[in-house]
Amino acid sequence: MTPSLSIEESRPLAAEFFKKIGLLTGGGDCPGLNAAIRAVVRRAHQLGIGVFAVYEGFKGLVEGNVAPFPLRQASGILHVGGTILRSSRFNPFKSKENLQALRQEVKKRGLQGLVVIGGEGSLRLACDLTRKKIVRCIGIPKTIDNDVYGTDVTIGFQTAVNTATEAVDKLHTTAESHNVVMVVEVMGRHTGWIAASAGLAGGADLILMPEKRLNEESIRRIILNRHARGKKFSIVVVAEDARVVNNRGRVVVSMPTSRDDYGPIKSSGVGEGVARLIRRLTGFETRVVVLGHVQRGGSPTPEDRILATRFGVLAAELAAKNKWNRMTAIRNGKILSVPLNTVTGRIKKVDPGLYRLANYFFG
Amino acid sequence: MTPSLSIEESRPLAAEFFKKIGLLTGGGDCPGLNAAIRAVVRRAHQLGIGVFAVYEGFKGLVEGNVAPFPLRQASGILHVGGTILRSSRFNPFKSKENLQALRQEVKKRGLQGLVVIGGEGSLRLACDLTRKKIVRCIGIPKTIDNDVYGTDVTIGFQTAVNTATEAVDKLHTTAESHNVVMVVEVMGRHTGWIAASAGLAGGADLILMPEKRLNEESIRRIILNRHARGKKFSIVVVAEDARVVNNRGRVVVSMPTSRDDYGPIKSSGVGEGVARLIRRLTGFETRVVVLGHVQRGGSPTPEDRILATRFGVLAAELAAKNKWNRMTAIRNGKILSVPLNTVTGRIKKVDPGLYRLANYFFG
Amino acid sequence: MTPSLSIEESRPLAAEFFKKIGLLTGGGDCPGLNAAIRAVVRRAHQLGIGVFAVYEGFKGLVEGNVAPFPLRQASGILHVGGTILRSSRFNPFKSKENLQALRQEVKKRGLQGLVVIGGEGSLRLACDLTRKKIVRCIGIPKTIDNDVYGTDVTIGFQTAVNTATEAVDKLHTTAESHNVVMVVEVMGRHTGWIAASAGLAGGADLILMPEKRLNEESIRRIILNRHARGKKFSIVVVAEDARVVNNRGRVVVSMPTSRDDYGPIKSSGVGEGVARLIRRLTGFETRVVVLGHVQRGGSPTPEDRILATRFGVLAAELAAKNKWNRMTAIRNGKILSVPLNTVTGRIKKVDPGLYRLANYFFG
Amino acid sequence: MTPSLSIEESRPLAAEFFKKIGLLTGGGDCPGLNAAIRAVVRRAHQLGIGVFAVYEGFKGLVEGNVAPFPLRQASGILHVGGTILRSSRFNPFKSKENLQALRQEVKKRGLQGLVVIGGEGSLRLACDLTRKKIVRCIGIPKTIDNDVYGTDVTIGFQTAVNTATEAVDKLHTTAESHNVVMVVEVMGRHTGWIAASAGLAGGADLILMPEKRLNEESIRRIILNRHARGKKFSIVVVAEDARVVNNRGRVVVSMPTSRDDYGPIKSSGVGEGVARLIRRLTGFETRVVVLGHVQRGGSPTPEDRILATRFGVLAAELAAKNKWNRMTAIRNGKILSVPLNTVTGRIKKVDPGLYRLANYFFG
Repeated sequence: MTPSLSIEESRPLAAEFFKKIGLLTGGGDCPGLNAAIRAVVRRAHQLGIGVFAVYEGFKGLVEGNVAPFPLRQASGILHVGGTILRSSRFNPFKSKENLQALRQEVKKRGLQGLVVIGGEGSLRLACDLTRKKIVRCIGIPKTIDNDVYGTDVTIGFQTAVNTATEAVDKLHTTAESHNVVMVVEVMGRHTGWIAASAGLAGGADLILMPEKRLNEESIRRIILNRHARGKKFSIVVVAEDARVVNNRGRVVVSMPTSRDDYGPIKSSGVGEGVARLIRRLTGFETRVVVLGHVQRGGSPTPEDRILATRFGVLAAELAAKNKWNRMTAIRNGKILSVPLNTVTGRIKKVDPGLYRLANYFFG
Repeated sequence: MTPSLSIEESRPLAAEFFKKIGLLTGGGDCPGLNAAIRAVVRRAHQLGIGVFAVYEGFKGLVEGNVAPFPLRQASGILHVGGTILRSSRFNPFKSKENLQALRQEVKKRGLQGLVVIGGEGSLRLACDLTRKKIVRCIGIPKTIDNDVYGTDVTIGFQTAVNTATEAVDKLHTTAESHNVVMVVEVMGRHTGWIAASAGLAGGADLILMPEKRLNEESIRRIILNRHARGKKFSIVVVAEDARVVNNRGRVVVSMPTSRDDYGPIKSSGVGEGVARLIRRLTGFETRVVVLGHVQRGGSPTPEDRILATRFGVLAAELAAKNKWNRMTAIRNGKILSVPLNTVTGRIKKVDPGLYRLANYFFG
Repeated sequence: MTPSLSIEESRPLAAEFFKKIGLLTGGGDCPGLNAAIRAVVRRAHQLGIGVFAVYEGFKGLVEGNVAPFPLRQASGILHVGGTILRSSRFNPFKSKENLQALRQEVKKRGLQGLVVIGGEGSLRLACDLTRKKIVRCIGIPKTIDNDVYGTDVTIGFQTAVNTATEAVDKLHTTAESHNVVMVVEVMGRHTGWIAASAGLAGGADLILMPEKRLNEESIRRIILNRHARGKKFSIVVVAEDARVVNNRGRVVVSMPTSRDDYGPIKSSGVGEGVARLIRRLTGFETRVVVLGHVQRGGSPTPEDRILATRFGVLAAELAAKNKWNRMTAIRNGKILSVPLNTVTGRIKKVDPGLYRLANYFFG
Repeated sequence: MTPSLSIEESRPLAAEFFKKIGLLTGGGDCPGLNAAIRAVVRRAHQLGIGVFAVYEGFKGLVEGNVAPFPLRQASGILHVGGTILRSSRFNPFKSKENLQALRQEVKKRGLQGLVVIGGEGSLRLACDLTRKKIVRCIGIPKTIDNDVYGTDVTIGFQTAVNTATEAVDKLHTTAESHNVVMVVEVMGRHTGWIAASAGLAGGADLILMPEKRLNEESIRRIILNRHARGKKFSIVVVAEDARVVNNRGRVVVSMPTSRDDYGPIKSSGVGEGVARLIRRLTGFETRVVVLGHVQRGGSPTPEDRILATRFGVLAAELAAKNKWNRMTAIRNGKILSVPLNTVTGRIKKVDPGLYRLANYFFG
């Protein structure tokens, strides 16, 4: 029987949990994960659901790195960045042994389901685990990239925009004091959400992002027009996966892959290519800043804390009602849930209206 | 003829303005006003509309404190708090002479309309000026209180929540180090928007706001329960207009009016009353902090900058299309406009769902 | 034998502690306490000294709220405000029983001495305990008020100045947008250190503090002169214990004591008095903001973290060398120690040069 | 005759300036320049000295980009980063024509001297101009690198440390959530001031800087020891000019020069080399973040504002007293001036005590 969701009735249930779930965070960390963890644990407790902490993502489930999550450990973490559950990029489907170990751990702990806080990759794993009847999952979308399909906003995005905008603000005075073109490379593996938002909020004079390939001539014209109007500096915000094409449509700037024997290390990327290009096109002095991992850190903004809290509360309520295979989402300002399988395998691109808006302020 | 709104076509028009509008900010200041001003001026310029700066709100229109607003003055203000147009609380309807002076100024400058950035009071004046055919207005809603009807969010609100949440974060460590009940009074003349949001984001153990009258017994129980669970400190967030009732429903704490010969000066308010009450009810040590005007200041958050930019762009486009008597709004995540006369004379109360959400984390 | 202080030699000692000390924080909390705690514990550990955590100040020593402080608990707290040892205002000399209990706890735990992190009050207790041979102490000075004698700076002061300056920055835009005189009351029980520093850093047009009694006429003249120069707003920073005299030298504004049956609650104070006075003297509109406990909170600035770390390291080294009855200090940029008994019973007033500097920017 | 420095007597003089000076900012920008500019202009005005704004450093003096600096333009800039006078890296000694033009501009404007706010390069030019009797100068030291000899602190340093420490704080949660070694490259062309200070304040587990060449073995040991103690993540702060040597003393990591046809563009630097090295030495996963120009920006901290104000006031007073060829300085907490020629041609290295302090917290 589905428990009543009213707080008054549910509390008595807490003494003896009628249901147990696991809770994990997968993929890259971002601000707001702990806020979501706190919300899942507190609301679950009120609803009579016992929560088990699964450490280091799906890896923890395979390795048996699992422990009961006492209520008091969910205290004092709302404002803290990172994830107290730690995280990993680990795919249990890569080996039969792992999958078997995961299955046994779920059984051993008596978990009726999992709440998976993750980006597109982790949510796909959650979906597959549910579909293959290994363990039923509920997903909570998080990523500073904001590219998860099916929800307008993901946990972590707004804080990352905040961090990037503060950096753009700081770079403004240097650009202005020295008459340079300042190129700021922000994160965004497949989409330009941070670039478009922080660019708009930071008053960028040009924004480059994957969704909108600009050619050299447009870039040259925008920067030179600005110069002609007496503005001797510019701020250019570039998503890490942006591309620039020449007048024949050939890509002239993209993100070079950088590897050594120990795997990929982020190196000179698209930002530097854009800086060189603008220098060649306009003759102006350029500087480049790559914000990098700083965008993943920091205390979550109030918006992120509230979003994470809403998602966490809803996930616990879905688990209480046995509504598995769902992802929490915010759509048109409403909190709701969508089928997990409808959101995986695709990404959410930047709203053209947002880019058009930014475009009004270019040059 | 209505101009095309595409940026490419509209620019040639800018050389000779086919239309002139006035732009003013009324009522209390808040973060994001300059971002809205910049957006109105830049987009209007692209659409061939000349903008006149009206200084110090409606007073400037009566006193002829009006001047052309050159494009370059809208530069470099996106991130700056306050309003470069300054503001005032001034009602031109209070005297016939004033109204006549206003009418003449509008005529003299050849203004086809006004863009009024204001809260409920200024928007009502804008509505009355339109209705009485004195000058046609478009409204842009702003107030840290977020109580303007017809829009889900107003300019300034999110930055105020940010400021209040940061303060709550700071007070947490003191409360915890000293085992005290810390009462934080935030702004909110008629509604508890800041209290509910900053309380939720700051992890408040109790939130008091006008929309939800709590009685002494509930308050006592929440604080004592928390103590019983081993938590020896509490954070209580109180909206300035909250009320507490006793068990017979009589109001025991409200905001005392404070005046001297020179008019009202904000003094000891509801926060102090709540602190005394909790002390009496529980015997615990209490402290009170009144955040006050700090909540109106600071650089707007990215969210506020983007919202203000969207509202400003839309207001300029409405003016270009002669769509007067409208207010820009955001509803369910969409930017749109609503009739000005449908939003005045009422206030928007806190969504019960938001308060219920906070309630899950009380005690 | 005194251990060598070089890190290489000292580490082997750590395995078996040759000495044990207690560590406590007393009085009001402030940012940087945890940074000092971490430094004492880590350096003591390297020097072969075992540290016992004493909770809630001297009260913990009386009540036996004492436990070994493992090294790993000193991890991850450098940037966190408040004190993980909690604090209290407790005087063990008020009862013979308490003093006896304290003596027994020290004996029972085998503590050779105490490190007391505190303000003037706690340092005096530390001095008395040493002098009366109850337990030998080393003091580390902390207080946002910066009024401890014998050191140029105390832990917490610089972060409080940072917080107060940020608030003054935020209030600037409101003052300017509305043409008001904004009065900001900052902490400073006996001295104007925060007022002078945050006033200077925030560009205050007038600063009032205990060390410098201004008369009404000077205040009136400064504000009116400014107005005459076309500046229609002013920022006035006031220390909570400032006084204003009239032309005959009689005090006309001071801090009213505010009490109820449950003891003192901070209420309308000197800030409000100054706002009323300026209104009466000039006729200008005024607003008042009382920053309050927010000044005690937040993550310590780098300066405070480094100062606290230096003090903590030195305190551990003094304990290792049996140099008791000393207080760590910074004088003319050098870290050193001074006899504890030479610093108690007096306060350090604001350097007149600092006030004169601020004075150049008044009006 | 030297004017009296008391504010009361000096004001009457302001009406007709008895002396004229130029004011410029040279080299890279940093937070606090505007605070210094404001202080020079306001104090000079009180002392009866007229100030001319020289734009874009020494270049402005050669090109005649010079204008009277009205008092009101020094208003509202105290908290703003960058420099309203703009800056350049320009050496007038490189051509006889330039030097002649500079000489003529000084004569034409009737400037008795210059106040030069700059780093080591600009201060050397100021010294040479004085020595060769072209124009007498007073220097104010500024650089985020803090490497100017003769002063304990330069303008901009403390804000840069603040920015770098905030970044280290943000990276902590990511490092911890993912068990990685996070390498943070901070600025510091010849010295490790930012690295040592932000590393200490941010709780770095290892700091690499030019003043202290570590060998591979020490680095390996520190990281592995930490791991052995159960800490699975590390923060390594690296100055951009740090070097690592192998066990035979050969440099294995240094800053690679990076150029294209349009000149040097900052690319993969020492941070990346260190990340690769640690990976090779320990097998742990590493990440690298290069903070870059963000460190030059932002609103100055209160400390920087007060330091800049003190330096600016003293520079104006030195000019009033005809004390040329001096640089303002802070030594052992005291504000004073030193002969300009004693500070150029050398750099100030990191205090070994500061590094030793940080060392206590390594691993």
